Amino acid sequence: MTFKFAGRMNNVKASTIREVLKLTERPEVISFGGGMPAAEFFPVDEMKKVTIKVLDEDGQKALQYGPTDGFLPLREKVVERLGRIGIKDITADNVLFTAGSQQGLDFCGKVFLDPGDAVVCEKPSYLGAINAFRAYECQFIDIPMDDDGMLMDELEQTLEANPRVKFIYVIPDFQNPTGKSWSSERRKQLVELANKYNKVVIEDNPYYELRYSGQPKPAIKSYDTQDRVVFLGTFSKTLAPGLRIGWICAGDEILSKYNLIKQGADLQVNSLTQRQINTYMEMYNLDVRIEELIEVYRKRREVMVEQMKKHFPDEVKINIADGGLFLWVEFPEHINTTELMPKVLEKNVAYIPGAPFYPNGGGENTARFSFSAMPEDKITEGIKRMGEALKELL
Amino acid sequence: MTFKFAGRMNNVKASTIREVLKLTERPEVISFGGGMPAAEFFPVDEMKKVTIKVLDEDGQKALQYGPTDGFLPLREKVVERLGRIGIKDITADNVLFTAGSQQGLDFCGKVFLDPGDAVVCEKPSYLGAINAFRAYECQFIDIPMDDDGMLMDELEQTLEANPRVKFIYVIPDFQNPTGKSWSSERRKQLVELANKYNKVVIEDNPYYELRYSGQPKPAIKSYDTQDRVVFLGTFSKTLAPGLRIGWICAGDEILSKYNLIKQGADLQVNSLTQRQINTYMEMYNLDVRIEELIEVYRKRREVMVEQMKKHFPDEVKINIADGGLFLWVEFPEHINTTELMPKVLEKNVAYIPGAPFYPNGGGENTARFSFSAMPEDKITEGIKRMGEALKELL
Repeated sequence: MTFKFAGRMNNVKASTIREVLKLTERPEVISFGGGMPAAEFFPVDEMKKVTIKVLDEDGQKALQYGPTDGFLPLREKVVERLGRIGIKDITADNVLFTAGSQQGLDFCGKVFLDPGDAVVCEKPSYLGAINAFRAYECQFIDIPMDDDGMLMDELEQTLEANPRVKFIYVIPDFQNPTGKSWSSERRKQLVELANKYNKVVIEDNPYYELRYSGQPKPAIKSYDTQDRVVFLGTFSKTLAPGLRIGWICAGDEILSKYNLIKQGADLQVNSLTQRQINTYMEMYNLDVRIEELIEVYRKRREVMVEQMKKHFPDEVKINIADGGLFLWVEFPEHINTTELMPKVLEKNVAYIPGAPFYPNGGGENTARFSFSAMPEDKITEGIKRMGEALKELL
Repeated sequence: MTFKFAGRMNNVKASTIREVLKLTERPEVISFGGGMPAAEFFPVDEMKKVTIKVLDEDGQKALQYGPTDGFLPLREKVVERLGRIGIKDITADNVLFTAGSQQGLDFCGKVFLDPGDAVVCEKPSYLGAINAFRAYECQFIDIPMDDDGMLMDELEQTLEANPRVKFIYVIPDFQNPTGKSWSSERRKQLVELANKYNKVVIEDNPYYELRYSGQPKPAIKSYDTQDRVVFLGTFSKTLAPGLRIGWICAGDEILSKYNLIKQGADLQVNSLTQRQINTYMEMYNLDVRIEELIEVYRKRREVMVEQMKKHFPDEVKINIADGGLFLWVEFPEHINTTELMPKVLEKNVAYIPGAPFYPNGGGENTARFSFSAMPEDKITEGIKRMGEALKELL
């Protein structure tokens, strides 16, 4: 029996990342695949104390339905943290909790995209966002980047030529997948172009608190004087992704639409989890935890870079990110990383081929390596094996 | 500044229930509004023990990303429970966890509906489902019910005349809002018609375990021999809605589409919550808990019926449900329950007007009263005040 599904289902693809994750469930696999935080540093004991406190003090409300936008004290804490990257003039009413940033991405599609509309994104861009937007039957216009971010001339030409562009989607800090960061000047210019062409900007920023080198930059939204920048944040990378709590910060007009979509999508995020995170932030110092993570991840990044330089051929270009979870690697043109993958998997090593991050094709010789989830000895061993696979091929 | 949103946003409305909930947050309000479980019976202490055990034994995995479809041991427990209502020949691979049933409803729209497609539903039907489907720009064909369920002649005429019907959406046990239940015969006939016209059936069944009188019926899906019935279930009413865990049970072809949509929507439900519920079901007896809830709710239902009979005018028709959370009341034609609402709210009492449950209009003289969340003395007092408001009006 075959059923008639919606047209959008022809566009929806399985996430390459989630497919690779399935292959790498075997414990012997050294996986540089998913953007997984280091599980050994999860605050497991703290979460026990936090949960007891929440259930003792507020147990009934923690298990009951709650407001769509979320638990007020936690929204207030998010406002405070956003202030540190220059996002001012907002209140807790400008924050809506979502099931991770991924749900924020899906809602961007749902709120803005009609079939045939265009999304402008970086080339390459985040696969999870591309897949989420694709379900709304849009086209993608991917704009090349240099080391300061998207090329503004190309962006302006695109906006001039394409009235169906609904929003510009960017990840300005330690971009997924390339690890690149936008300069302050480029962030400001982006907002100016968005103002000029009356476009919305989606600033997806899950990693900005995980910086290992270089100077922090203000959020793109900090330059926003017309409430046209939608900021997506998350606790997934700083606290724990299994809790599935992210947020959308936007001006009243736009956020009211996201609130309506949230009602229909799943009413609200988990009441208990919101209180757990809120109490965690009251009982413990999230900033201290982040500093500790930074030390761990900085070291792992260094080890991975060092090992890649040692074991990969000289022609390979390694993009060293100032933060986040990923290194982006460009192999010589004739190496197809999708075809290389099974050979590397035979050696019990996994990475994510770069091609799925290019919505309009390209990037066959690129790959994303996550350094966050593996201890240093496994990084050393995994990159060595990867180097062997490359040598066998070349 | 005004932004250009997707066309679907013109169809998306705020949920009347969520709006009423906001008005009733003041503690002095006696609310018969939302379908809220009785918070005083939430297993707060049990959840403490459960959480400690989960974090002690499996803390890292409970906070990490996990598979899209969900935690296997919990999916297996759902399979066992579905077997009790006649849903056999399924495995854990036929179950996908969602953020409450509401997310299952949203996904039904996303998987099946193109703009202009039709949804067949009961008249009236669940407001949260209507709102979720509306976001996919569908039309509704609402079919009248008698005390055995949807009228099959009208359904067949509709299916014959409307090739754009994508699915038939029904709540066969203690329907929201009417409290009506479908007979076994009618369930079987529905599947036969769905087979004949090659339509999908969405069986939304959040309440079936909360039965206070009458005999249990097999699920509609138990009559399904062609994998065309999608069953939506939830732990919201039996355990706690704040945890936001429901599930979709469907055949391989259909469920694979829902899995793809889940990836793009929010990757997966909360890893910790899935383990909390799983461990709850291993440490405690969910069936015993449900029996206790049944005793409480049965009594509350009786008190509400008794007080309505005492305080409401004789012309008022009360539909007494065999289970679930709601009584459905039909007032004389000239009473508009939406207009009555502010007068009743002045007396610090709230209910949900019936009109929003009619996707194509109607039902202005109807209202839904939830008896689950208020203790007996408040039910007595609230219905008395409601009776006074009615007398002032008549």
